[in-house]
Amino acid sequence: MDMTSGMNLTTQPRHYRLAVVPGDGIGPEVTDCALAVLDAAEGLFGFTTGREHVAAGAKHYLATGELFSPGIATRLRGNDAILFGSMGDPSVAPGILERGFILAMRQAFQQAVNLRPVRLYPGVKTPIAGLTPDRCDLVIVRENTEGAYVGRGSTVHAGTPHAVAIQESVNTRVGVERVVDYAFRLAASRRGKLTLCHKTNILVEAGKMWQDTVNELSARYPDVETDYVHVDAMCFHLPTAPERFDVVVTDNLFGDIITDLGAVIQGGLGVAASANINLDGSAPSMFEAIHGSAPDIAGKGYANPAGAILSLAMCLAHLGEAEAARSIESAVVVVLGTMGGLSGPAMGGSTAQIGAHVAAALADVAA
Amino acid sequence: MDMTSGMNLTTQPRHYRLAVVPGDGIGPEVTDCALAVLDAAEGLFGFTTGREHVAAGAKHYLATGELFSPGIATRLRGNDAILFGSMGDPSVAPGILERGFILAMRQAFQQAVNLRPVRLYPGVKTPIAGLTPDRCDLVIVRENTEGAYVGRGSTVHAGTPHAVAIQESVNTRVGVERVVDYAFRLAASRRGKLTLCHKTNILVEAGKMWQDTVNELSARYPDVETDYVHVDAMCFHLPTAPERFDVVVTDNLFGDIITDLGAVIQGGLGVAASANINLDGSAPSMFEAIHGSAPDIAGKGYANPAGAILSLAMCLAHLGEAEAARSIESAVVVVLGTMGGLSGPAMGGSTAQIGAHVAAALADVAA
Ligand SMILES: CC(C)[C@H](C(=O)O)[C@@H](O)C(=O)O
Ligand SMILES: CC(C)[C@H](C(=O)O)[C@@H](O)C(=O)O
Repeated sequence: MDMTSGMNLTTQPRHYRLAVVPGDGIGPEVTDCALAVLDAAEGLFGFTTGREHVAAGAKHYLATGELFSPGIATRLRGNDAILFGSMGDPSVAPGILERGFILAMRQAFQQAVNLRPVRLYPGVKTPIAGLTPDRCDLVIVRENTEGAYVGRGSTVHAGTPHAVAIQESVNTRVGVERVVDYAFRLAASRRGKLTLCHKTNILVEAGKMWQDTVNELSARYPDVETDYVHVDAMCFHLPTAPERFDVVVTDNLFGDIITDLGAVIQGGLGVAASANINLDGSAPSMFEAIHGSAPDIAGKGYANPAGAILSLAMCLAHLGEAEAARSIESAVVVVLGTMGGLSGPAMGGSTAQIGAHVAAALADVAA
Repeated sequence: MDMTSGMNLTTQPRHYRLAVVPGDGIGPEVTDCALAVLDAAEGLFGFTTGREHVAAGAKHYLATGELFSPGIATRLRGNDAILFGSMGDPSVAPGILERGFILAMRQAFQQAVNLRPVRLYPGVKTPIAGLTPDRCDLVIVRENTEGAYVGRGSTVHAGTPHAVAIQESVNTRVGVERVVDYAFRLAASRRGKLTLCHKTNILVEAGKMWQDTVNELSARYPDVETDYVHVDAMCFHLPTAPERFDVVVTDNLFGDIITDLGAVIQGGLGVAASANINLDGSAPSMFEAIHGSAPDIAGKGYANPAGAILSLAMCLAHLGEAEAARSIESAVVVVLGTMGGLSGPAMGGSTAQIGAHVAAALADVAA
């Protein structure tokens, strides 16, 4: 989270406009929790927020047909940042919300970087035998607007035995460079190590663009050491030797894959946070837990709000409230350490109760 | 391995011609081990083999410039199957051997299916906490000749800030259907469950071809239940709930990625075996351990030969020596259960000694 943090030296009142998109399933529950923590943070750290709730997601789409419409885009754009719950429901065909809302927003708002910290917090149970928190503290920087996610291609002779489907991955120097540059700066602010993850030996055109960009930019960051790991080998190293990595930069599709693996290692999707960062200030950045809408457990009070609360912390860091961000993260760490499990009844409290615990811990941390 | 097994009812002498490509690094050591086990198997199960050693790989390339040349192709083609060690050395630039030999062979010999069993054997240490052998017995069927592995694409404005690199994934109905059909037959011979792994919500053209093919073929296999898991979600389910899967079918690139994750779960690359299967009898199939050439430990006697020996078992199953194949697998299981660790000095014996233990265990198993 270091990269998105700033120093706020002004004595002006600090006010931020937040768009809040709770979405579907457990999205609203965990977002409510995050907002309760935000309430507590405002009192403790002396800033204020305005919150504009925006209806979107599966239910909203079924009722209105609206996805990432110009109207929704305009409302979101009027804010400094977006807090996002989660979207999706079995009653909406796969792909509709993903392409019609999430990818559309990432593109329209040029959210060039998808930032996913992979930290194992003390007391959190990881499925990886013997893994300890000191060995697992890395950040995956995923390109978020291009690559295979352009969703372009064509099929000839469809429906015949001779059908050929071609799927394209489009990589621009501009798109790759801004992400790689961001990753270098992030690495420089951390342990000074940047790993490119790709499959350059097979994806020769895209691979060359990524590797050349890393090589060229590395001259500007003499204190950052670089290396390279194939995406298949990454599946091997990430679970067994995460201490090898500080910052990992990768393309959109590989990032989608290895960040889920990262979430496994850190104890599950419930604790994983993410930021979709606009780098040029032209539109708001978006912050969301990595988990989905989990309709099967929605409304049961079983959802772990940690991912949503940690995403709020990333949001505040991005807005310049570094101390509030750090303190919220610390408060989450305290509460995670006391929980009996990461989801379901084993959590030792309902979603709302866990949220209240975090708010209480925040007061202690800030005191 | 069930799928490649047959019954040999003839009383004719059973003789098979094997091409042996030891390759680089630990390739020759583990291949020698596998051949020692093969010697033992011949005596015990009453078949014979001819073995044609073929020099290829990094050292051979540096000395001669030869990759998958017409000459090598002809020699390999003259055999019933290929036993492959591993290829690669830091002195050969990445991509040269991969594209120039391995992918060239997979294409030229139409090795349409890359078959990778993911089994946790009793006594083998997995990095996944609490995972038990009964929960981990699946097979990944990877398309092996197309998709992103065609390595095609183009870059415009290369070297300028406006460069655009396009990478293509080419999926043919023929290529997809033969693999999916194979996977259905394999599932029908096992627990009757087939899972498609893809990213159909984003890769719409390729995704539709894969999903349509599964849907259409499923009518022919009424006893096989099908489902679908996104590749990112697969990274989550495979380590935490491998019992969800029986046969997983996927494309070339996703297969490359998730089979490495599968190898992690089953205890490491040292025990993972694979087959590159030609389905139409037009060329030999190829069998290899999943591990690489590991130049750092080459010659030290530390390499685990289990992957190579299990690949030999897959080869014999493919050739119709089902009993020998099953027995070799059982012998490996016995020896793995007695080893102190899966590589290095912790193995409790050198590569050759482990091989000798397997040969001895094979005699017991066959008795
Ligand atoms: C919902 C989906 C479009 C999305 C993606 O594939 O990027 C999700 O998996 C993620 O990782 O944020
Ligand atoms: C060596 C390389 C070309 C190969 C691949 O990417 O297919 C390897 O990783 C594998 O999985 O067999």
